[in-house]
Amino acid sequence: MATRALDELIQLLARLPGLGPRSARRAALHLLKQRETLLPRLAAALANAAREVRKCGVCGNLDAADPCWICADPERDAALICVVEEVDDLWALERASLYNGRYHVLGGTLSALDGQGPEDLGIDRLLQRVEGAGVSEVILATSATVEGQTTAHYIAERLAGSSAAVTLLAHGVPIGGELNYLDDGTLGAAFRARRPMDAGTAERA
Amino acid sequence: MATRALDELIQLLARLPGLGPRSARRAALHLLKQRETLLPRLAAALANAAREVRKCGVCGNLDAADPCWICADPERDAALICVVEEVDDLWALERASLYNGRYHVLGGTLSALDGQGPEDLGIDRLLQRVEGAGVSEVILATSATVEGQTTAHYIAERLAGSSAAVTLLAHGVPIGGELNYLDDGTLGAAFRARRPMDAGTAERA
Repeated sequence: MATRALDELIQLLARLPGLGPRSARRAALHLLKQRETLLPRLAAALANAAREVRKCGVCGNLDAADPCWICADPERDAALICVVEEVDDLWALERASLYNGRYHVLGGTLSALDGQGPEDLGIDRLLQRVEGAGVSEVILATSATVEGQTTAHYIAERLAGSSAAVTLLAHGVPIGGELNYLDDGTLGAAFRARRPMDAGTAERA
Repeated sequence: MATRALDELIQLLARLPGLGPRSARRAALHLLKQRETLLPRLAAALANAAREVRKCGVCGNLDAADPCWICADPERDAALICVVEEVDDLWALERASLYNGRYHVLGGTLSALDGQGPEDLGIDRLLQRVEGAGVSEVILATSATVEGQTTAHYIAERLAGSSAAVTLLAHGVPIGGELNYLDDGTLGAAFRARRPMDAGTAERA
């Protein structure tokens, strides 16, 4: 409808995750209503991001610098590597400020369907880091999905010969989670991993 | 986190309707993952839309031409004007292909809170069109919200002296709607507007 320029904008916006055809139309109209303010700023931000943001050659994080600010920071513990699927998983861990080591961003999971193999996830690069430096622990923080866990198992196998400990995130009841809303898989994992209650745990809970 | 360029992109994407902070982060990463394909095309589409798309001086529709393709089409009935809030309401009516008249796009509703008065909605322009040409009917197709109906009543009052008939969209049970999921307002409107069942209606239903 209307013009080719508007159609094209709507179709491209609809390819963003979280926007369907209807919300892409609303977003395009919103941008055109603010064509003096929001629209040119977004166009400039896209160009800036394309020009300035690069992938860290060490860990795969996105930053203006390569190596990224985490890999370049001498305060971060180089003996720990946390393996995550995507950059937003890294962001989530950074927001929680519970980890002071470094990362390896896979950029996806192993997927025969999408033709995504170990070389696409930079797994050789990870192995070199683990073998080269004094890495003591590799934390596999992939998603608790079939693809995430398959990828974690593959990486664990490849790391079998190394001296680094390989750990996985714990599965269980999420904090604030109600039992009757949990799926069977989570409930089973939490049940199997149950542990004796001691005074310290009870106090913290 | 990370870089100013990426932060800026995320913050601007989060201002689009339908995207919150979390989905704006995902959208920004998705764009950077496709920085050779999707990202430059979206940047170009924004620039094109800003340059080519303009507001129709007659009806307020968005098009590459002014007057727009609807106002310029001699096949469309100039005696009918359908008043809608936004351009996507016009698109919805056009998709349904049930109307062959012209439009007036308000670009919002009357709102004391947002400081939006009759002059912002082009209501004088609408009145001039109704007085000038041989307009026989003005269909007020604003939303069934308090703001939409207030705006419709205001326009109806301003049109009181004209020779054009002023009509409103019918309220009632949506096609496919189940009674026990409807709100009281819709149920009340449908009940009050009930009509005798005749053979023709029964057959169509």
